[in-house]
Amino acid sequence: MKILIINGPNLNLLGKRETEIYGTRTLEEINKEIAAFATTHKCKAEFFQSNCEGAIIDKIQSTVCDGIIINAGAYTHYSYAIRDALKGSGLPCIEVHMSNIHAREEFRQTSVLADVCKGVICGCGADSYKLAIRALLNA
Amino acid sequence: MKILIINGPNLNLLGKRETEIYGTRTLEEINKEIAAFATTHKCKAEFFQSNCEGAIIDKIQSTVCDGIIINAGAYTHYSYAIRDALKGSGLPCIEVHMSNIHAREEFRQTSVLADVCKGVICGCGADSYKLAIRALLNA
Amino acid sequence: MKILIINGPNLNLLGKRETEIYGTRTLEEINKEIAAFATTHKCKAEFFQSNCEGAIIDKIQSTVCDGIIINAGAYTHYSYAIRDALKGSGLPCIEVHMSNIHAREEFRQTSVLADVCKGVICGCGADSYKLAIRALLNA
Amino acid sequence: MKILIINGPNLNLLGKRETEIYGTRTLEEINKEIAAFATTHKCKAEFFQSNCEGAIIDKIQSTVCDGIIINAGAYTHYSYAIRDALKGSGLPCIEVHMSNIHAREEFRQTSVLADVCKGVICGCGADSYKLAIRALLNA
Amino acid sequence: MKILIINGPNLNLLGKRETEIYGTRTLEEINKEIAAFATTHKCKAEFFQSNCEGAIIDKIQSTVCDGIIINAGAYTHYSYAIRDALKGSGLPCIEVHMSNIHAREEFRQTSVLADVCKGVICGCGADSYKLAIRALLNA
Amino acid sequence: MKILIINGPNLNLLGKRETEIYGTRTLEEINKEIAAFATTHKCKAEFFQSNCEGAIIDKIQSTVCDGIIINAGAYTHYSYAIRDALKGSGLPCIEVHMSNIHAREEFRQTSVLADVCKGVICGCGADSYKLAIRALLNA
Amino acid sequence: MKILIINGPNLNLLGKRETEIYGTRTLEEINKEIAAFATTHKCKAEFFQSNCEGAIIDKIQSTVCDGIIINAGAYTHYSYAIRDALKGSGLPCIEVHMSNIHAREEFRQTSVLADVCKGVICGCGADSYKLAIRALLNA
Amino acid sequence: MKILIINGPNLNLLGKRETEIYGTRTLEEINKEIAAFATTHKCKAEFFQSNCEGAIIDKIQSTVCDGIIINAGAYTHYSYAIRDALKGSGLPCIEVHMSNIHAREEFRQTSVLADVCKGVICGCGADSYKLAIRALLNA
Amino acid sequence: MKILIINGPNLNLLGKRETEIYGTRTLEEINKEIAAFATTHKCKAEFFQSNCEGAIIDKIQSTVCDGIIINAGAYTHYSYAIRDALKGSGLPCIEVHMSNIHAREEFRQTSVLADVCKGVICGCGADSYKLAIRALLNA
Amino acid sequence: MKILIINGPNLNLLGKRETEIYGTRTLEEINKEIAAFATTHKCKAEFFQSNCEGAIIDKIQSTVCDGIIINAGAYTHYSYAIRDALKGSGLPCIEVHMSNIHAREEFRQTSVLADVCKGVICGCGADSYKLAIRALLNA
Amino acid sequence: MKILIINGPNLNLLGKRETEIYGTRTLEEINKEIAAFATTHKCKAEFFQSNCEGAIIDKIQSTVCDGIIINAGAYTHYSYAIRDALKGSGLPCIEVHMSNIHAREEFRQTSVLADVCKGVICGCGADSYKLAIRALLNA
Amino acid sequence: MKILIINGPNLNLLGKRETEIYGTRTLEEINKEIAAFATTHKCKAEFFQSNCEGAIIDKIQSTVCDGIIINAGAYTHYSYAIRDALKGSGLPCIEVHMSNIHAREEFRQTSVLADVCKGVICGCGADSYKLAIRALLNA
Repeated sequence: MKILIINGPNLNLLGKRETEIYGTRTLEEINKEIAAFATTHKCKAEFFQSNCEGAIIDKIQSTVCDGIIINAGAYTHYSYAIRDALKGSGLPCIEVHMSNIHAREEFRQTSVLADVCKGVICGCGADSYKLAIRALLNA
Repeated sequence: MKILIINGPNLNLLGKRETEIYGTRTLEEINKEIAAFATTHKCKAEFFQSNCEGAIIDKIQSTVCDGIIINAGAYTHYSYAIRDALKGSGLPCIEVHMSNIHAREEFRQTSVLADVCKGVICGCGADSYKLAIRALLNA
Repeated sequence: MKILIINGPNLNLLGKRETEIYGTRTLEEINKEIAAFATTHKCKAEFFQSNCEGAIIDKIQSTVCDGIIINAGAYTHYSYAIRDALKGSGLPCIEVHMSNIHAREEFRQTSVLADVCKGVICGCGADSYKLAIRALLNA
Repeated sequence: MKILIINGPNLNLLGKRETEIYGTRTLEEINKEIAAFATTHKCKAEFFQSNCEGAIIDKIQSTVCDGIIINAGAYTHYSYAIRDALKGSGLPCIEVHMSNIHAREEFRQTSVLADVCKGVICGCGADSYKLAIRALLNA
Repeated sequence: MKILIINGPNLNLLGKRETEIYGTRTLEEINKEIAAFATTHKCKAEFFQSNCEGAIIDKIQSTVCDGIIINAGAYTHYSYAIRDALKGSGLPCIEVHMSNIHAREEFRQTSVLADVCKGVICGCGADSYKLAIRALLNA
Repeated sequence: MKILIINGPNLNLLGKRETEIYGTRTLEEINKEIAAFATTHKCKAEFFQSNCEGAIIDKIQSTVCDGIIINAGAYTHYSYAIRDALKGSGLPCIEVHMSNIHAREEFRQTSVLADVCKGVICGCGADSYKLAIRALLNA
Repeated sequence: MKILIINGPNLNLLGKRETEIYGTRTLEEINKEIAAFATTHKCKAEFFQSNCEGAIIDKIQSTVCDGIIINAGAYTHYSYAIRDALKGSGLPCIEVHMSNIHAREEFRQTSVLADVCKGVICGCGADSYKLAIRALLNA
Repeated sequence: MKILIINGPNLNLLGKRETEIYGTRTLEEINKEIAAFATTHKCKAEFFQSNCEGAIIDKIQSTVCDGIIINAGAYTHYSYAIRDALKGSGLPCIEVHMSNIHAREEFRQTSVLADVCKGVICGCGADSYKLAIRALLNA
Repeated sequence: MKILIINGPNLNLLGKRETEIYGTRTLEEINKEIAAFATTHKCKAEFFQSNCEGAIIDKIQSTVCDGIIINAGAYTHYSYAIRDALKGSGLPCIEVHMSNIHAREEFRQTSVLADVCKGVICGCGADSYKLAIRALLNA
Repeated sequence: MKILIINGPNLNLLGKRETEIYGTRTLEEINKEIAAFATTHKCKAEFFQSNCEGAIIDKIQSTVCDGIIINAGAYTHYSYAIRDALKGSGLPCIEVHMSNIHAREEFRQTSVLADVCKGVICGCGADSYKLAIRALLNA
Repeated sequence: MKILIINGPNLNLLGKRETEIYGTRTLEEINKEIAAFATTHKCKAEFFQSNCEGAIIDKIQSTVCDGIIINAGAYTHYSYAIRDALKGSGLPCIEVHMSNIHAREEFRQTSVLADVCKGVICGCGADSYKLAIRALLNA
Repeated sequence: MKILIINGPNLNLLGKRETEIYGTRTLEEINKEIAAFATTHKCKAEFFQSNCEGAIIDKIQSTVCDGIIINAGAYTHYSYAIRDALKGSGLPCIEVHMSNIHAREEFRQTSVLADVCKGVICGCGADSYKLAIRALLNA
C-alpha cells in the first residue's frame, strides 16, 4: 500500500517558528519518523508539502497511490478546490491536524474537506499522521 | 494506565439496528476487542454505556482513571453539561465517533465537547477507539 | 397491533397545573380514554411517561411494538438523542402535541424529531393521541 | 357542520405526476372518499382547488362554513396573504399535508399559516384530510 | 391629477371582520370618504381592490394616472413582483397602512415595496389614504 | 392642542449642507412654515432640536403637550433610550423623516422607535411634519 | 420538438418602460424573432406571459410540450409554487433572464426555481431565450 | 417560608475541582452556611443536587415549597424541559450563578430559564444564594 | 466603603409614569430608602441619575468610590462607551435592573455591560439595589 | 474576435474521473470540439487550464483577447482575486458551468464572479461553452 | 491648513488608567506632541475631547477647519449620528485608533464611521494621529 | 532596518487598468518612490508582487527582514493561509490598502489578516505604504 501524505501551507516551518505551539521537531524529522513507521507497517509513504493550493491539487491528481493523508493547514477551512480534488481522486482520505483545531480560533472550527474524507484525526501531535496510517491500513 | 471508555445514547444498539450504517458487530463484541487491545498495550479499559446524560456525568465524576475516551452519540452536539464534566475532570479526553460525522446530518457538524478534549478521531469505525487509546498512551 | 405512547417531561402534571392551557383532565384520565379507544380499534396501547431523556430512550429501545406515538414535550425541540432512538427503532412514529406549538414560544417552532417520524399531529388536545392511533392503523 | 376543504397549487395533479411520492389516486378520487367520510360523520365537505393565491383568498372570504381544512401546497411557506385570510375568517382551521413536510426540502420546514390555525396534521397521506375532519368535529 | 388607490388582499373585508383592530367602517365607506376628499382637492381617485397579486400588477400596468397609493396588505412583505410593477410605472407612489405595522407581527416589519416608493405613511387609520393624497399633491 | 416637534442630530444643518439631498430650506424656515400651519389648524407647535440623545430625552420628559412629532435622525436606528422616553410619555407620537429612509443605507431600514409610536410618515420632505400634525389632530 | 416559453410578471412591458435597462424592443418583437429562430431550428415555440403566479402554474400544468423556457421575473425569487409546477412537469426546463441578475439587487441573487431546472442562462439579453432553445435541442 | 435550592450538573464538585475558578469550599460547606442563613431569616431551605435533567424536573414537580432558587449549571443554557417545570410550578424562582456567566464562554450568555423566573442573580459567589433568599423573602 | 449608584435614562420618572410596571414609588423615595440601608451597613451611597450617556461616563470617571451599582436603563443594551468607562474604572461593578429584563422585549436580552461587571442582579424591584450593596460589601 | 476560455481546478480531469457526473469526454476532446465551433463562427478560441488561482489571474491579465469564458470550478465560490482580475480586464466575460450548480452542494450556490460578468450559463454540459461563445459574439 | 482632532469617550483617561494597554502618556502629553508636530508641518491642530456623543456632533458641525481626525472610542462602533455629522461636514476625515481594534473584542471589529472617512489608521499608538495628519496633508 | 513590501493579486496592474479608481501611476513608479522614501529614512525596502497565494506565503517565510507591509488585495478577505504565514513570521506587520476598503463592496469589509498585524492603514493612496514604513520605524 502506498500512501500520499500532504502538508499544506506553513507546515514546512514546523519546529522552526511558534515552537511553543507546535513543538521543536521539524517537518523533516517528523516525516522521517513517519516513513520509518510506514515501512514497519509494510506500506510506503510519499511526502509532499506546498504553500500553494494549486500545487496541492496537482499533486493529488497526479500521484498514483492507495490513500491520502492530508493536513491542509489553513486551506482546510476554505479550499473547496482541494475538496473537489480529494473527492475526484476516489481514494480514502484522512484529514489530520497536529493541534486540536476545535480549541483554537473560530475560523478553524469549519473544515470544507472533512465530508469527502473517510475520517478526521486531530489533536494528537505528530502521532496524528501515524494514527491516520493505521486508519488507512485498517480500512 | 487506566482508561474510561464512555458510549452515549443509542450506542448500546450497535450491531442490532441500522446495521447497514454501523456494521453487525455488537457493542459487547467491540468492547471485548478493545479490552484485549488495551491489555496488549499494558493499559486497562473500563467500559460504560448509558442513554442518560446525567448518568454519563456521574460516571465521569466518580471514576478514577488516567484518561477518557468518549463517544457521546447525539449528546456530542448539545450537552454542555457533559462538556463541563469532561473539563472538570482535568483528564486528557479523546472524542471519538465510528462514522464520519462530517458526512452526515447538519446538526452533527457541531461538537460542544471537542474544545475541552485533547483531540478528536472520527470515521474509523471501531478502530476509532483503538486509535484513541494509542493517542492517550502517547500523550 | 401494539402501540407505545410516550409522554415526555412535565406531561405527568396535565390537569394539575396550568389548567387554563392544558385543561383539567389528568394524564391518567386521558390515558384511560385512549386505552379504551385503542381497544375499540383492536389495538393495544402501552403508556410511558418520564421526565428523563435517557429513560425515554431506554423505553424506545426496549419496547417491542408496532408503532410509537410520542409527545416529547420540551425534548421535542433539542433532544437529538431521542431522535436517534426513534430512527433506530425502525418503527412508524407519530409526533403529537396537545396544543398548537406553532402558536406558542419561538423555541417551540423547531422539532428535531419530526423528520424521522411518519407524521406530526398537533393542536387537537387529547384527541391528538387518538388521531395518531388512527394514523398508525391506516399506515 | 359544513367544512371547506382547500387544496392549493399543484395538488390538482395528484395521482397524475410524481406518483412515486404522492401515490396514484387522483384528487377527484380522494375528494370523493373524503366526501363520503364527511357524510358518514354528519357533516358536509365543500371542495376547492386553485393554483392561484388570490382565488384561494377569495374562496376563504366568501364561503359560509364552520371550519376550514387547508393544504396550501407551496403557498404554505410564504403566503402571508392566505394567512391573513384564514385569521380574518375567525374559523377553526386545520393545516394538512399528505407528506411529512419535515422530511423534505428545507424551505418546507416553515409554515406561515400554522400559528393562525387550530392545529396541523401532516404525513398521513389522504388520511390527513379525514383526521382533520375529526379534529374539527371534536373541537 | 388622477390617483390610483390600490388595496391588496383581505382589505375588502374592512369593517366586516376583526373590527376590534380595523374599526367598523367598510372599505366602501372609506373609499367614498376618500373620493369626496379627492374631489375637494381637485384630483380624482380611482379605486381598485384585489386579493390577487397578478391582478394588482395588471392594474398598475394598465392604469393611466399621475400617482399611486398602495396598501398592499400582506403582499407588502414579499411581493417583489408588485415592487417591479410599481418601479416600472415610473410614477410617484405612496405605501400606506391603516395600522402601525411596526407594532404588529415580526413579518410585517419588512416592506419590499418601500424603497421604490416616494414615501410611506402608516398608523393613521383611514386617514393614511388622505395624507397620502396630500403627499402626492405636494410632490 | 399642543404638539412638541423634535428634531434629532444633524437636522439643525438642514439647508446648509448636503442641499442636493435635503433641499435649501433651513430648519428655521421649515419650522416657521410648520408653526404657521399649526396655528391655522388651531394647535400650537413647540420646536426642539438637539444633537444630544440625553437632551432629547430630557425634553420629552419635561414638556407638557398632547402629542409628539419626532424626526430622531440617526438616533432613530439605535436609541432605545429615546424609545423608552416616548413610550413612557404615554402620548401619541408620530415618527417622521423628510427623505424615504427605505431607499437609503441599510442601517436606516430599522427604526427602534416605530413600534411605540402611533404611526410613521416618511419621504414627504418638509410636508412630513405637516402630515404628522394632521395625523395627531385626527387621532 | 415543442417548447413552451413563459414570461412572468412585468415582462409584458418590455420595450415600453425602463428602456434604458431592458432596451426598446417589445415582448412581441422579441417573441416574433424567437418564433422564427425556433422554426429555423425545426422546433415550435408557444409563448405565454402572465403577471399572475397561478396562471403561470395553470399553463405549465396544461401545456403538452417537450421542454420549458421560463423567465419568471420577480417570481423567480420566491415562488415555490411555480417551482413545484416545473418539477412536477417532469420536463427539461431552462431558467432565463435577459439581464445579469447577479449584478442587480440583493433579492435577485436567489432563485428558488434553478435547482429543479436543467440549467440557467442569464445576462444575454433577448438572446438568452435563443440560447435556451439551443440548450433544450441539444439536451 | 420553605425554599427549594437546586444545584444542577457538576456543582456537586464545588471545592474539589477547578478550585481556581470556584473556590475551595465544597457544596456541602456552602449549603450548611446557607441553611444557617435561612434559619436566621426564619425560612427553611431544602437542598437538592443532581447531574440529571430529569431528576431535577422530578424534584421541582414533587417538592411542596414557597419558592425555588436554581443554579442549573450548564442546563441553564438549553434545558427547555427544566424551564417548563419551573413555569409549571407557579412558584417565584430565582436563577443564580456563582460566577459571572456573562464574562465566560459565549454559550453561557443565553439562559432559557431566565424569562420564567422572577429574577436573576449572578457573579456573587456563594452569596448569590443568600441574596436570592432575600429576594424571595421580600417578594 | 463608598458606593456610587447610577441610574440611567428614564429612571428619573420612576413612580410617575408606567406605574403598573414600575410601581408607585419615586426614584427619590427609593434612593432615600437605599441611603438609609447603606448607612445601616456602614457604607455611604452617592446617587446619580442622568439621561445622557456622556454625563454618566463623566460621573464614572470623576467619582472617587469603592464600587459602582449601575442601572443603565436602555443604555445597558448598546452603550459600549459606558462599558469602557466601567472597565476603565477598575472598580467592582454590579449591573442591576428592577424588572426581569429577560421577560421583556427581545432587545433587552443583551447587556453590553455585564461582562465587565462583577455580577448582575435583576428582577428584584427596588431591592435589586440593596442586594447589590450587599454583594459589593461581601466582595 | 479572439476568446480566452479558462478552465479552473480539477477540470483537467474531465472524462477521467467521476464520469457518471461529468461524462466520458476529456477536456481535450471538448476543447477540440469548441475550437472547431469557434472557427466555424469566425472567431478564435485560446484554451487555458490551471489548478492554481494565481496562474489563472496571470493568464487573465496577460492575454490579449476580446472576451473571456470562464469555468472557474470551485474557485467560482470564493476567489475574489479572480473576480478582481476579470473586472480589471474590462472585457465581457461569461461564467459557465457544465453541471447545474444550483442542484448541487450548498456552497456551490454562491458565485463571487457572476456580478462582474456579462452573464452566466450553466447546466448545458459541454454546450455551455458553445452557448457562451454565441453570447459573446452577439454582445 | 487647520485640522480638528477629536477624541471620544474615555480617551481623556489615557495614561491614567489601564496603562498596561494604552501606555503611561496622558492625553495632554500626547496632544502637546501632536500640536508640535502639526506646527512643524505648517498646519494647526485644534483638540477636542468629550464623552458625550452630542457634544462631538456639535463640535464637528461648528468647527471651521480643513480636515478631521477622529478617534471616536466606543462610539466608533455604533454612533450613526457621528457618522452623519462627519459625512455632512464634507471634509476629509481620518478615523484613527491607537490600538489595533481588529485584535480586540468582537464588537470593535465594526466601524460605522469608516465608510464616510477618507481612510483609517489603527494600531500605531499615539503615532496614529501623526500619520493621520500626514495623510490629510497629502490628500 | 529592512522592510518587505508585499503586493498581492492584481496590484501589478496599477496604473494600467481601472485608472479612474487607482490613478495612473504604475506599481513600478510607486515602488520607486517608496524605495527612495525608505532610503531617506535609513531603511531598505524589498518589493514583491504575486498573484499567487502560495508564492506570497513562500516569500513571507523565506525573507529575512525586520517588518512586513502587505497589501494582499483580494486575499485580504479570505486567505487564512497568508494570515498564518504573517503570524508565524513573528514580525511586526502593517496591512495597507490604497483605497478605503470600507467604502467599497461588502466583501471588502472583512480582513482575515488584520488581527495578526500590528496595525492597518487604508485610504491614503500610495502614501499608505509610506505611512506604514513610518509606523514600522516608530514601533
